[in-house]
Amino acid sequence: MPAEERYGASGDLVVRHARVLPMAFGGAVRGSPPTLPEVPDGAVAVVAGRIAYVGADTDLPAPLRALPTLDAAGRAVLPGLVDCHTHVPFAAWRADEHAERLAGATYAAQQGGEGGRPRGIARSAAQLAAAADADVLAFSHHRLGECLAAGTTTVELKSGYGLQAAQEMRLLALMQRLAAEVPQRVVRTGLFLHGPPPPPGREAWAQRVVSELMPRALAQGLLDGVDAFVEAIAYRLEDAVPLIEAAQRAGLATHLHAAQLEPSAAAAWAASRGLTSVDHLDHLDPDGVRALAASPTVAVLLPGATFLTGGATRPPARALLAAGACVAVATDLNPGTSPLTSLPEAAALACRLFELTMEEALAAVTVNAAAALGLGHEVGSLEVGKRGDLVVLEGDEPALLVYRLGHPAVETVVAAGRIAYRRSDGGAKAS
Amino acid sequence: MPAEERYGASGDLVVRHARVLPMAFGGAVRGSPPTLPEVPDGAVAVVAGRIAYVGADTDLPAPLRALPTLDAAGRAVLPGLVDCHTHVPFAAWRADEHAERLAGATYAAQQGGEGGRPRGIARSAAQLAAAADADVLAFSHHRLGECLAAGTTTVELKSGYGLQAAQEMRLLALMQRLAAEVPQRVVRTGLFLHGPPPPPGREAWAQRVVSELMPRALAQGLLDGVDAFVEAIAYRLEDAVPLIEAAQRAGLATHLHAAQLEPSAAAAWAASRGLTSVDHLDHLDPDGVRALAASPTVAVLLPGATFLTGGATRPPARALLAAGACVAVATDLNPGTSPLTSLPEAAALACRLFELTMEEALAAVTVNAAAALGLGHEVGSLEVGKRGDLVVLEGDEPALLVYRLGHPAVETVVAAGRIAYRRSDGGAKAS
Repeated sequence: MPAEERYGASGDLVVRHARVLPMAFGGAVRGSPPTLPEVPDGAVAVVAGRIAYVGADTDLPAPLRALPTLDAAGRAVLPGLVDCHTHVPFAAWRADEHAERLAGATYAAQQGGEGGRPRGIARSAAQLAAAADADVLAFSHHRLGECLAAGTTTVELKSGYGLQAAQEMRLLALMQRLAAEVPQRVVRTGLFLHGPPPPPGREAWAQRVVSELMPRALAQGLLDGVDAFVEAIAYRLEDAVPLIEAAQRAGLATHLHAAQLEPSAAAAWAASRGLTSVDHLDHLDPDGVRALAASPTVAVLLPGATFLTGGATRPPARALLAAGACVAVATDLNPGTSPLTSLPEAAALACRLFELTMEEALAAVTVNAAAALGLGHEVGSLEVGKRGDLVVLEGDEPALLVYRLGHPAVETVVAAGRIAYRRSDGGAKAS
Repeated sequence: MPAEERYGASGDLVVRHARVLPMAFGGAVRGSPPTLPEVPDGAVAVVAGRIAYVGADTDLPAPLRALPTLDAAGRAVLPGLVDCHTHVPFAAWRADEHAERLAGATYAAQQGGEGGRPRGIARSAAQLAAAADADVLAFSHHRLGECLAAGTTTVELKSGYGLQAAQEMRLLALMQRLAAEVPQRVVRTGLFLHGPPPPPGREAWAQRVVSELMPRALAQGLLDGVDAFVEAIAYRLEDAVPLIEAAQRAGLATHLHAAQLEPSAAAAWAASRGLTSVDHLDHLDPDGVRALAASPTVAVLLPGATFLTGGATRPPARALLAAGACVAVATDLNPGTSPLTSLPEAAALACRLFELTMEEALAAVTVNAAAALGLGHEVGSLEVGKRGDLVVLEGDEPALLVYRLGHPAVETVVAAGRIAYRRSDGGAKAS
């Protein structure tokens, strides 16, 4: 059935009598802690999918009172959450690799295919290549449905488990299908430099991506940004530079996976070139902190992977915030190291693992995550003109979002003015 | 409507073609790692609510093939999970106290009512006293529904937010109502020594609990066990001893909250007296480890509270396992320090925070948790004669249960042979 029918057709809605946290700061949030200019008895109106009013309920203009109404008394309302780093689509989990790590294996050794067993990115690529499109789509739809139920209304998808041209193009086409079929706003990233390269090897593949793959994807309108996995076990920074430069010339968003497994000059380079984001950063050094603080590049932290791969190192989150860097948090939803579909779960983990405050964590999954996708003008806060995306929590305390570990404190999710999810055990009253 | 109607009336069911992990070890599991005698193409049959067959699907007796059938091909089947430590019923979350701790407050200071604001156990007691029975029941039903959807088929409930006789008796009556209304097997614990005592004070209250409260609750048939919070900020071990001894004479299960906030002799004492369990243990010392290893007392670890209160200390889980102690893991579901309703979430946290392997974590939330309630003969493993409780995972890899942080990998939950929960996005095919 058409997407419109699946989640309601109007795009007009007013949420009333809520504790509204607009997360609006008049620009990208930097440093810590962000202020939270909340409206105690607030209303948010959405007309034709765009926010038309945010403010005191008593000041809600008369015409907007006639819209379909969601009474959110006793509930907090936040902007729809923005998950700025996922590896959807993929075809299957690799939970057994987590069990192997719990018994002593390391992620880096697994990527090398320890003991001759297929493991890591190469295994996901094999699973993807063996799976029918319909199965990849069904699996990915389930995951994005879980993301939605946890409050995510904007989600970045990455290719990357293709590992060669035909499969990467197939992934981009699947991403396009998903984008058309889910309620979320979807951002499409080509993670062209990821796992083991096809013959004749790394350097040739990195050149071919720039000369052939990215232009083809662009010509077909399938790409919002590019990404590269820069680590000793993957690509070198010099492999990624031509791709990033070409993408910047094409006006795309640019991202790097960097400093996840070891210290790296990639983060400071990304900051110096004004990339949209640089992600992971578990091993970010003080030079990298300074460079990010002095740049518009968003530092994206991925606590699911940090926690589940079991590394002892933590990204220097407090140093980044103290220096004034813009810090986002994402799920890193992927088959092998971070199965999180819930962005509140990522935020809750970030609070305790990386010592974020509640306010910093809320900014990290809304306004700052929007900036990490180059969409700060479009989503991530409740401001007139932005997309009508919001989350109604199960109570009036915003800290519920980072407290209820294991179960998102989300009752109702509105995407572009439509009710896209409502918890089946009740939820805010609609009238 | 009657409970029977809510989750199906028969109690007869056969699950077929699953990867069955019976978690059956011929007795309480001790030490690490437990073996997992799995059945690759297995069947589990339940007749009149009790397990009648566990084994190879090909050997399933003909009469059992005629039972209502759940085809679980491609799925792992585990025993229903046992949550051996929760503080349900309660009336409201205290998420704001978590935000305060993230900003620097400590749990111990909060219990003291820092800054004159009501905080901690005393605040939950005030919320409970102010709430109508119907509201406490509704809130608690939502929580137990979340527990069920995450796989919990046996759940311990504690009183404790009463803090005086009338409210404690009210809580026990509410627990009785919940026990009659939820699909789970409910175990009722009187946590009579918990927060600030009523006048004239701690010692008088501890005596009154033994002479008056416990006998009254026993006479009304409301009690399966007792518990006491032994910490510097709560009760002393000598306050708890007469209660524990009286409970043992009455044949009740006996538990202590011990060594959560500081080292304590309570755990070693509990082990020496053969209490059913001793819980928290973040500050357990080597003497306590040795004592627990030499006793039948189960060591119950509560990673939600450890993680969310932000203490740097971890319970010596590996030392306990190496010494041969029986280790369980529970949610500690409570308003202020551990809002976990998902036992898989607790297990996943325990793997990374306390270094449990997947096998140890699965045993910790099934067989060993059953032992922590004195119910090792009744629930916690798939063995003929035990209650027909089982969990169908969303795939055939048992590690999914401890991998999918933030979203339980549970598709279908069977309680006493009835389908008590099925994920709304599909699930194993019933025929």
